[in-house]
Amino acid sequence: MTTLSTPGPTLGVVGGGQLGRMLAEAASPLGVDVLVLDPTTDCPAAPPARDQIVAEFDDTDAIRDLAERADYLTFEIELADQDALERIERDTGVPCHPKPATLDLIHDKLVQKRALADAGVPVPDFREVESPGDVADALDDLGAPAMLKARTGGYDGRGNIPVDEDTDHAAALAEVGGEGNAMVESFVDYERELSVIAVQGDDGTAAFPVGENVHREQILRETVVPARTSDDVRDRARDVALDVLDVLDGRGVYGIELFEHADGSISVNEIAPRPHNSGHWTIEGAHSSQFEQHVRAVLGWPLAATGLRGPTAMANLLGDGTDSRDAAIADVDAILEAPGANLHWYGKRETRPLRKMGHVTCVQTADESVGDLLAGARTLRDSIAFD
Amino acid sequence: MTTLSTPGPTLGVVGGGQLGRMLAEAASPLGVDVLVLDPTTDCPAAPPARDQIVAEFDDTDAIRDLAERADYLTFEIELADQDALERIERDTGVPCHPKPATLDLIHDKLVQKRALADAGVPVPDFREVESPGDVADALDDLGAPAMLKARTGGYDGRGNIPVDEDTDHAAALAEVGGEGNAMVESFVDYERELSVIAVQGDDGTAAFPVGENVHREQILRETVVPARTSDDVRDRARDVALDVLDVLDGRGVYGIELFEHADGSISVNEIAPRPHNSGHWTIEGAHSSQFEQHVRAVLGWPLAATGLRGPTAMANLLGDGTDSRDAAIADVDAILEAPGANLHWYGKRETRPLRKMGHVTCVQTADESVGDLLAGARTLRDSIAFD
Repeated sequence: MTTLSTPGPTLGVVGGGQLGRMLAEAASPLGVDVLVLDPTTDCPAAPPARDQIVAEFDDTDAIRDLAERADYLTFEIELADQDALERIERDTGVPCHPKPATLDLIHDKLVQKRALADAGVPVPDFREVESPGDVADALDDLGAPAMLKARTGGYDGRGNIPVDEDTDHAAALAEVGGEGNAMVESFVDYERELSVIAVQGDDGTAAFPVGENVHREQILRETVVPARTSDDVRDRARDVALDVLDVLDGRGVYGIELFEHADGSISVNEIAPRPHNSGHWTIEGAHSSQFEQHVRAVLGWPLAATGLRGPTAMANLLGDGTDSRDAAIADVDAILEAPGANLHWYGKRETRPLRKMGHVTCVQTADESVGDLLAGARTLRDSIAFD
Repeated sequence: MTTLSTPGPTLGVVGGGQLGRMLAEAASPLGVDVLVLDPTTDCPAAPPARDQIVAEFDDTDAIRDLAERADYLTFEIELADQDALERIERDTGVPCHPKPATLDLIHDKLVQKRALADAGVPVPDFREVESPGDVADALDDLGAPAMLKARTGGYDGRGNIPVDEDTDHAAALAEVGGEGNAMVESFVDYERELSVIAVQGDDGTAAFPVGENVHREQILRETVVPARTSDDVRDRARDVALDVLDVLDGRGVYGIELFEHADGSISVNEIAPRPHNSGHWTIEGAHSSQFEQHVRAVLGWPLAATGLRGPTAMANLLGDGTDSRDAAIADVDAILEAPGANLHWYGKRETRPLRKMGHVTCVQTADESVGDLLAGARTLRDSIAFD
């Protein structure tokens, strides 16, 4: 039996970026207070959260303080300190979800791919590589070109280098962090990038409708839902995503990025143990948002309905121009005036090129197709100007 | 041209109840920080607001502090101090919307009804009454029974007394506050109670689809949208609500309660110069919420689309049993598990009988009718238990 007290429960969140901000926005209607820990004073999540603890992500005393002031713990960044969370969960009895051990799988792409492959989840072929000779052997096995990847520390495409027989393997290996931090993955020739926001609840799982992602310069630009592919492919993507949950430990929302291959088969690309940029569309486009689901799941509450309210397109609003601490200003009239457009502005204190400053979501108000909505979201995104 | 800075603008709100809470929840996605002033420590709006100033609603120094820390001022309670707001707006140059003078119209029902009648807005017949003899005269003019009303200080039906020839007019007059505070209004035999959430923007007006309200013990229990009446009546209700805006001064959302008469004509019952309980359904049921609209309007931003996303029913979750400071707990499993149901829990620190503790909104997930959604919302409302 789920009960709501006055005051309600408090959710402690390691990380206070835009994901923490949207978690706090989603927690409030449920009567749940959010407390965030983040090293940046006035982090994006600070205004809608009840309070912020200003501390580094690996500050054990501060995480302990967070736990002592909270009823549940979670994290919105992979940088969260797994050992500290595990120890503090044990010492304080305040449950942390996902389980800190899951961060192992996330931090190390080789460990992650092995676990998925062992569980029968389709992933691109891969090899552990320690030396330039291993890279050459892997290219023989997997075909060239292939992708040399940092096992740990990669983000938004950083740490991925295409390699073939002519590449300086030693130099490439050094660039991704050297021996002990590298793997080679077969080059994936995909038709489409998909993603599924899946949820592990206390008593069952759920998945939102399959989204289609558009990346440029290895950064997510847009997501549209439903993905413009066949029902079969969408069903397969959903099934694979739910299979991935079996490999992960702990309740919560997971963002699962997938490749759709030319033959309609699916493989897993990356997993985020938290709400994901490609699930922001759920705020307006689904019967519940990924953020509400994460709050419910972490607290052990029943999960909410994940059905689509209507075709939806989301476009990120990325910083352009130069770094700016104070003067970032966007002309948002077109976004504010468009019917069915929803602005999300993260309140970041500083603009940087390609930094995620906000997003816009377009939902169907008449009979627009997914393509129309995507075109509309792009036009709105392009209408803003940064100073 | 609307611009969004980093950090964004701050909206100062006098009052920090559930309306302030939902304002803060709606402001955050827009990048707008909310600062509330409320005498109750840890008021419902405190968690999602950036900060709370703990002070009485008529504490001039505190309101001045609020203005100095904000870019715009508004209020979410009629108890806001009109004179203080007017003076502080003039002194600080921080604009307050709606204009404080509008509170005059709201505080005094006689002044309000006169202003509406003068503007050609349909209202029930009324008479100012100063003495028991005036009450008898009014009954002769308007017919008996009629409603004796307090001009000021009434709320949720308090201050309304039905009177006829046999009533002790002197005693009734004393009960509503005596000479100088009374009016008699003709008894309205209505088919249906409707309400329209209307918005005065910087450059135009808008109105959400017409809702149908169900009251019991003079407290709003449920709202369903669209109202179950004819298109003609809905159009007329919308037109009357937009006419009401002409009488009011300042930007913002106004909740306008209306009567639908047997002949399909409309008259105005009450006006709230703020988001209203009968507009809570907009959070999930419309393309924008009344709270987002209020933020946009007060800031002078373009208004958002007000179209219906689908039939919607909202039911208030009211405190029952006895007063309780700590132990109020509701079993919310049925609400959390119902597809299309959305919980809003206000985080109040104390339960009292009939106190608004939260609400549940049911949106269409398949092809449920408005009646089905209302029945569903009532069942969910009745499933909760307070300790």
